[in-house]
Amino acid sequence: MAMYVVSRRLSGGSGSTTSQLLGTLRYATCWRSYSRSFREEKDTFGPILVPNDKLWGAQTQRSLQNFEIGGERERMPEPIIRAFGILKKCAAKVNMEYGLDPSIGKAIMQAAQEVAEGKLSDHFPLVVWQTGSGTQSNMNANEVIANRAAEILGHKRGGKFVHPNDHVNRSQSSNDTFPTVMHIAAATEINSRLIPNLKTLHTSLHSKSVEFKDIVKIGRTHTQDATPLTLGQEFSGYTTQVKYGIDRVLCTLPRMYQLAQGGTAVGTGLNTKKGFDVKIAAAVAEETSLPFVTAENKFEALAAHDAFVETSGAVNTVATSLMKIANDIRLLGSGPRCGLGELILPENEPGSSIMPGKVNPTQCEALTMVCAQVMGNHVAVTVGGSNGHFELNVFKPMIANALLHSLRLLGDASASFEKNCVRGIQANKERISKLLHESLMLVTSLNPKIGYDNAAAVAKKAHKEGTTLKEAALKLGVLTSEEFDTLVVPEKMIGPSD
Amino acid sequence: MAMYVVSRRLSGGSGSTTSQLLGTLRYATCWRSYSRSFREEKDTFGPILVPNDKLWGAQTQRSLQNFEIGGERERMPEPIIRAFGILKKCAAKVNMEYGLDPSIGKAIMQAAQEVAEGKLSDHFPLVVWQTGSGTQSNMNANEVIANRAAEILGHKRGGKFVHPNDHVNRSQSSNDTFPTVMHIAAATEINSRLIPNLKTLHTSLHSKSVEFKDIVKIGRTHTQDATPLTLGQEFSGYTTQVKYGIDRVLCTLPRMYQLAQGGTAVGTGLNTKKGFDVKIAAAVAEETSLPFVTAENKFEALAAHDAFVETSGAVNTVATSLMKIANDIRLLGSGPRCGLGELILPENEPGSSIMPGKVNPTQCEALTMVCAQVMGNHVAVTVGGSNGHFELNVFKPMIANALLHSLRLLGDASASFEKNCVRGIQANKERISKLLHESLMLVTSLNPKIGYDNAAAVAKKAHKEGTTLKEAALKLGVLTSEEFDTLVVPEKMIGPSD
Amino acid sequence: MAMYVVSRRLSGGSGSTTSQLLGTLRYATCWRSYSRSFREEKDTFGPILVPNDKLWGAQTQRSLQNFEIGGERERMPEPIIRAFGILKKCAAKVNMEYGLDPSIGKAIMQAAQEVAEGKLSDHFPLVVWQTGSGTQSNMNANEVIANRAAEILGHKRGGKFVHPNDHVNRSQSSNDTFPTVMHIAAATEINSRLIPNLKTLHTSLHSKSVEFKDIVKIGRTHTQDATPLTLGQEFSGYTTQVKYGIDRVLCTLPRMYQLAQGGTAVGTGLNTKKGFDVKIAAAVAEETSLPFVTAENKFEALAAHDAFVETSGAVNTVATSLMKIANDIRLLGSGPRCGLGELILPENEPGSSIMPGKVNPTQCEALTMVCAQVMGNHVAVTVGGSNGHFELNVFKPMIANALLHSLRLLGDASASFEKNCVRGIQANKERISKLLHESLMLVTSLNPKIGYDNAAAVAKKAHKEGTTLKEAALKLGVLTSEEFDTLVVPEKMIGPSD
Amino acid sequence: MAMYVVSRRLSGGSGSTTSQLLGTLRYATCWRSYSRSFREEKDTFGPILVPNDKLWGAQTQRSLQNFEIGGERERMPEPIIRAFGILKKCAAKVNMEYGLDPSIGKAIMQAAQEVAEGKLSDHFPLVVWQTGSGTQSNMNANEVIANRAAEILGHKRGGKFVHPNDHVNRSQSSNDTFPTVMHIAAATEINSRLIPNLKTLHTSLHSKSVEFKDIVKIGRTHTQDATPLTLGQEFSGYTTQVKYGIDRVLCTLPRMYQLAQGGTAVGTGLNTKKGFDVKIAAAVAEETSLPFVTAENKFEALAAHDAFVETSGAVNTVATSLMKIANDIRLLGSGPRCGLGELILPENEPGSSIMPGKVNPTQCEALTMVCAQVMGNHVAVTVGGSNGHFELNVFKPMIANALLHSLRLLGDASASFEKNCVRGIQANKERISKLLHESLMLVTSLNPKIGYDNAAAVAKKAHKEGTTLKEAALKLGVLTSEEFDTLVVPEKMIGPSD
Repeated sequence: MAMYVVSRRLSGGSGSTTSQLLGTLRYATCWRSYSRSFREEKDTFGPILVPNDKLWGAQTQRSLQNFEIGGERERMPEPIIRAFGILKKCAAKVNMEYGLDPSIGKAIMQAAQEVAEGKLSDHFPLVVWQTGSGTQSNMNANEVIANRAAEILGHKRGGKFVHPNDHVNRSQSSNDTFPTVMHIAAATEINSRLIPNLKTLHTSLHSKSVEFKDIVKIGRTHTQDATPLTLGQEFSGYTTQVKYGIDRVLCTLPRMYQLAQGGTAVGTGLNTKKGFDVKIAAAVAEETSLPFVTAENKFEALAAHDAFVETSGAVNTVATSLMKIANDIRLLGSGPRCGLGELILPENEPGSSIMPGKVNPTQCEALTMVCAQVMGNHVAVTVGGSNGHFELNVFKPMIANALLHSLRLLGDASASFEKNCVRGIQANKERISKLLHESLMLVTSLNPKIGYDNAAAVAKKAHKEGTTLKEAALKLGVLTSEEFDTLVVPEKMIGPSD
Repeated sequence: MAMYVVSRRLSGGSGSTTSQLLGTLRYATCWRSYSRSFREEKDTFGPILVPNDKLWGAQTQRSLQNFEIGGERERMPEPIIRAFGILKKCAAKVNMEYGLDPSIGKAIMQAAQEVAEGKLSDHFPLVVWQTGSGTQSNMNANEVIANRAAEILGHKRGGKFVHPNDHVNRSQSSNDTFPTVMHIAAATEINSRLIPNLKTLHTSLHSKSVEFKDIVKIGRTHTQDATPLTLGQEFSGYTTQVKYGIDRVLCTLPRMYQLAQGGTAVGTGLNTKKGFDVKIAAAVAEETSLPFVTAENKFEALAAHDAFVETSGAVNTVATSLMKIANDIRLLGSGPRCGLGELILPENEPGSSIMPGKVNPTQCEALTMVCAQVMGNHVAVTVGGSNGHFELNVFKPMIANALLHSLRLLGDASASFEKNCVRGIQANKERISKLLHESLMLVTSLNPKIGYDNAAAVAKKAHKEGTTLKEAALKLGVLTSEEFDTLVVPEKMIGPSD
Repeated sequence: MAMYVVSRRLSGGSGSTTSQLLGTLRYATCWRSYSRSFREEKDTFGPILVPNDKLWGAQTQRSLQNFEIGGERERMPEPIIRAFGILKKCAAKVNMEYGLDPSIGKAIMQAAQEVAEGKLSDHFPLVVWQTGSGTQSNMNANEVIANRAAEILGHKRGGKFVHPNDHVNRSQSSNDTFPTVMHIAAATEINSRLIPNLKTLHTSLHSKSVEFKDIVKIGRTHTQDATPLTLGQEFSGYTTQVKYGIDRVLCTLPRMYQLAQGGTAVGTGLNTKKGFDVKIAAAVAEETSLPFVTAENKFEALAAHDAFVETSGAVNTVATSLMKIANDIRLLGSGPRCGLGELILPENEPGSSIMPGKVNPTQCEALTMVCAQVMGNHVAVTVGGSNGHFELNVFKPMIANALLHSLRLLGDASASFEKNCVRGIQANKERISKLLHESLMLVTSLNPKIGYDNAAAVAKKAHKEGTTLKEAALKLGVLTSEEFDTLVVPEKMIGPSD
Repeated sequence: MAMYVVSRRLSGGSGSTTSQLLGTLRYATCWRSYSRSFREEKDTFGPILVPNDKLWGAQTQRSLQNFEIGGERERMPEPIIRAFGILKKCAAKVNMEYGLDPSIGKAIMQAAQEVAEGKLSDHFPLVVWQTGSGTQSNMNANEVIANRAAEILGHKRGGKFVHPNDHVNRSQSSNDTFPTVMHIAAATEINSRLIPNLKTLHTSLHSKSVEFKDIVKIGRTHTQDATPLTLGQEFSGYTTQVKYGIDRVLCTLPRMYQLAQGGTAVGTGLNTKKGFDVKIAAAVAEETSLPFVTAENKFEALAAHDAFVETSGAVNTVATSLMKIANDIRLLGSGPRCGLGELILPENEPGSSIMPGKVNPTQCEALTMVCAQVMGNHVAVTVGGSNGHFELNVFKPMIANALLHSLRLLGDASASFEKNCVRGIQANKERISKLLHESLMLVTSLNPKIGYDNAAAVAKKAHKEGTTLKEAALKLGVLTSEEFDTLVVPEKMIGPSD
């Protein structure tokens, strides 16, 4: 249940043999999978042992040993890995236009496609907490794709027939590839997960708003009884919040669709050819069916991640909205006897075994927990985004991870909340009606007929004696039962007058 | 140096006389201005003494006594007060269309105009930390405008000839006026302060980018020497950050231009007439020359302040950008001898009296402090925005205050930074050139001529012996001085090749 | 309503005369007080006009003009100004031991005492958003005290008979004075405002806990009905939260009591005498009656403000607690008819004029808004605290301001909440009892007698038919009325069994 | 690569057979492991299929299907699972004292021990984003331990010979077990990971401080050259920050050591026996060798998680400190030619292949990214902590996860930073000395000999002409070379004078 990894720093050019290397192995408990056989890979630092069943190379292995932070849970998120697949495939395609040997280019494209499909994810063991440029994950992608492409072409892994740097990373630098995959990954998650799930939630809330359009209920301001509205109106507020939330996230996409690729090391594009940046953005756009373009200014695109801070801000707003909605729903569904009890929430799991009607609002709880984490991640993104230096922001993996975490959680939780809660919400019409008619707020309807002073007297009597308004009014003899019923019509209090 | 205020709770209908009231006065040290003479004002709670020289009434006075939190510094921000002036003026105008006595309506408009112009700001003593609906500040506006309008019409203050509720607050509720003034105030501050100042900063950074376009300098990634770029390119990154920042804030305005007015207590619009909401939004739009419209959904507009959370998120992104820019500028200007020293910052105040050239980057410091506070305020807005209940979010004054604080600080600090720093930045060309040519990064230019191995040898020798690349190359005899100068041309390293 | 200030940068040694200077004046609307007459003050930058009725000097004036950020509301907080008074008094005292002319020393002490008492606060016009070391406020203190001391000694202001640097600032640097006054100010606010007010709140909550110790009520988990507890037990939870909150803040004081004074410019203590640091800490301790000591490591004390981040973290925890308590209280007090209605909150201002019993929980609202701002300020402090460089953190004024803001707001709001809310809370015993006995949770008491299956049947019948448990039990004939009353005793459900 | 799970809600008592159940299976891609065979488990909701090779039961399975949020990465953190093992073991032990059948009790203890050792972690598939009380994870623990204990006793899983509720969860409620495991997990992580690693870091920094005690270097304030100090003094500041950081975290432990166990559902302890709470805390203390005690107030312990907010605040302060330290180290190590270059950082991985000396400060980058995430997690904890309602805070799993995430990351990153960076830092003495002697700050040493005016003239000449002070002084003829060398001795400028 562990992998033997090399712990000794191999910093010299010392002629270490495999047996020597094996002597320095130690037991690393954080990795579940393990290997018994190793091969030697090399980088400019010297040789290093890599598990034979893995496609990664020396630089990946070195990072694995230098950054034992957080364990397996903290691996670079899957959407980043897949985006590397997309990018490297497109880079090979464009590089072939600029002279890359087509046989090698095509093998890279095939290997990269496997990465894009998640088939090689087990070969990406590095954690988020590595170099702040994401260089090591870029090298991980280069190494895995090079080894896999070599195998496709009939060569063995580790032989560098396809070279991680010269072929796979050609015309690229970690400094432009990593921000590029950040943007690809985030835009993809937004378009394929967050927005669709928010749209479903919006539709579901809207349906409830329509379903509940004739149910008049007591309004509440300051948590106190207020003038009535319909339950449908109340849900229309939630619906609008989600609708605007979708707009908010979409508004930030124009800057998310800008790709840094072509900026290379510092944004100048040194070592690329003119036009490379435009071509590769077009290739990514075609590959993903999303409107990616090359970034207007590559210096900004490497040195800052304002686009992530901005999108995180929009996502933070969505979290704020969903926190409010979920809070309302659990409070309106509180009970069964001693709460507000206006909503009946679907029962998804056992509450109390003996007490019927105790339905814990667990979906609201999961969602609001997610919202709190999204708010926290937003601060992390903000702190990382503000701490760049000179030509390169080196909080890239953290920023990417935090926003992708938020997107995933909020997308999934929205779907779960919709499916397991909103869709099944029922109005407790009896309870709603009872509360409404017990309320003292309706007294305002009597003003025109019996005057402010009499109306106030009715309310005070009802409050003091704990009766309904009607009972109080009849006792005071200010109007008849029929008159009361004609005047006090909550249904007429839910909009402006003509 | 203090005002006598009533501390006893006047909760009964007890027939308290002025002398009795005076007996309950106590010394409140938090208010600098004071009065010796008082008049009695009343609300449904009973009579209360109000300083004679103030226009406010009973409810304002009561809030003053019930919320001794933070002192004078914490007064409701000026833009909110002015927005109340605008709103109440527009409300009177529209109410006249719906039957408000024109003589009273016009007096209200005149009084409200004075509020809008800031002439009556001393009559708005309430702090932010009051009821969460801002009701007390709405009543403050109603009371001041009613009393002032009464005076305009020749009646005395306190007499309710013009009634705060029946006339000034007609067809309104605190629950819709306060969110309305929040939006008016924020939109105004954004349009009149933040955006213009960011635009000036953008122009200034752009000018510097052009001015510095031919100054080639060393790039820095991971804070380490990297391939060169021009100082103009470096500043173009900052310029782009600010440009996008402006876009980001503008993107959020469509939702900020939506006004809650017309929703009254819970969003239904009870007690207004149909069309009132549209008319009043149009009146505010005309008055402010900003494209305000009535909110699409009034329930959302009262129960949530997502628009503020969203805009705060955009402003937070701007803070992130400015933090990065100001940090870079102070580090690039570090020195005079022992720092990077590439920029010469303007000297605005004495640094060291004896040591010339020590120019503290004080404008960067003020700006980055502002950015940190803006990030903090954003969290406050987020927390407040997520904690609404049912039909009304009751964190309104805090949310308003925090965003307005951020807008003011960031707007002012951007202007100060532009005027007192960016505009006067000079490049230390000598230092820039010296660093560039001492750098080892230029060795990559030798590869094509002498091969990778020789180039690496040159670099290693230079690094080991602390010499320039040229010295090392000549010592190694791999090329001549002329060859070196022909090959090593940083100016050719600042873009992609043809 | 404005002060004429000099806007032209006086960067040269140009022999500007007063008339020339006046030609450069412009109208600064942000300052309310104004002067018509000016005197010339000088610093190493040259001469500058200062309002005659103000005690400040050239450097203060220059800062005023260079940092037009935020306006008067943003002045350096009062506790910092007063702490400067304390520190400068103590410094003069200690400096006399080291040779400062006693007549000058005593005049400084007298002037500084006036600053400490807040008598000269109008002479401290600078805003928080200045140089990040607080140098300008230190010079403001030096200038004001020097001029005032000179006047005490019969000399005129501006004449430098008492010198701001050589006398008042002797053996000091802004870099050690500003952190010192930060610590003095925060420790003082904690001891004189926050802790006492939290203690009062604790006492008040504890009294309520005792008062309510026999009121059995329904418990609520997941906002759903749960097993009973007493209202006193519920309040004991709040009481404990506040008690621990006090402990939390106190726990951080040992590091807050460490003073940087004696570190001078970079922490080495250059230009002070051995022992100066210990003596001045002792003097401050004596002056304030708080156990200040000299900081163990002056490098840490200048370069970081971890002590502020730590205390802010404790204060953030208190805000978290108070948010929870205030939220519970407003929800438990919701109603009057359609909420939980278990608590009756004191009525401090008019709610609805016609509807009795609608008491808005305005104190809860003010307090929770304060809590949200405190959470935001905490992030600002964290960001500022993490962004120091080398020997000096230059977010000092922002950090100081944010924590002092939180301390003031939380201290004041706790007091207001205690006085205007907690103290007057009453239990609505009738309502509490009604809810408790309507609850289905009590069915668990029947298990031992009639078995789990019968008990569940009773509960299900009651839930389905909307009756009480007793009614259902009698209908099902599983026990008699007497038996039910004997078995179902909520009072026996509020603790572990023997 | 997926597990077949049941998606149909099994809400009725419908007599579903296994074949029917299988018909409702669907493909859930988020779970890697899969099973082909299933067994039927039951809860009060009815039967549900569970993979045969898993020990969990019906409630776990149901949660798995109802909360598809975030996927496998989001599983409840390992320390929580292990803490459940510890707690359930102790509960069985104490329950035997209160009458639990010893054979069952011992089997539970054995099974729980396996959970505590992490041997059964694969049987805990639930994610953090579930019910906010953590009930489902508590049931997961109960189900796994019950099934495993049954197997130990020779019974088959699913048969409930050992009952998850009646035996394993005896005298407990999720509402007290989950906060208990939160405290056990956090206290354990603090004591076994964070504190030891911070101590090692402290030791390492302290060693460097001693090693560098005689290296005099230029100080830097405002990023500008300032008076000198030793590199050892600079590192002593970092050392002190870490030392205080340890103190800060330890200070919060007294409240973390308080266990909620014994409070059961709402804090009253209903269904436990008197003394149960004390005994179980003692058992946990013995089991963990940590000084756990029973919480003084169980209502606070269930309804709030202030202890987590507090500890998170202390951890946030540590993050602030480490951000500062890592930032300084990377800036002081910037170069190799165009930065400050005072420190030589260890080279752990290839930087530039051709440019020697370019050592990216990757450990600083990983650490500062971790710090940013910790700051974000702290906000998440704060938001969750402030949003409890009534008797139960239902952000428990999120709060637990966020703090445990911070503890793990900060602990691991501190160790990595120490091992791979701090330990190997070398001073670049040549560079340090060069910068120091080029500096103009040393001119202050000349004051006593040649007077302020002459000294200033020397500095100005040197600044203007770009020479050293010595060269300027000799040119001006104000003193001899020997005199200069006698006077300008930075070593005398690093402390107060006698």
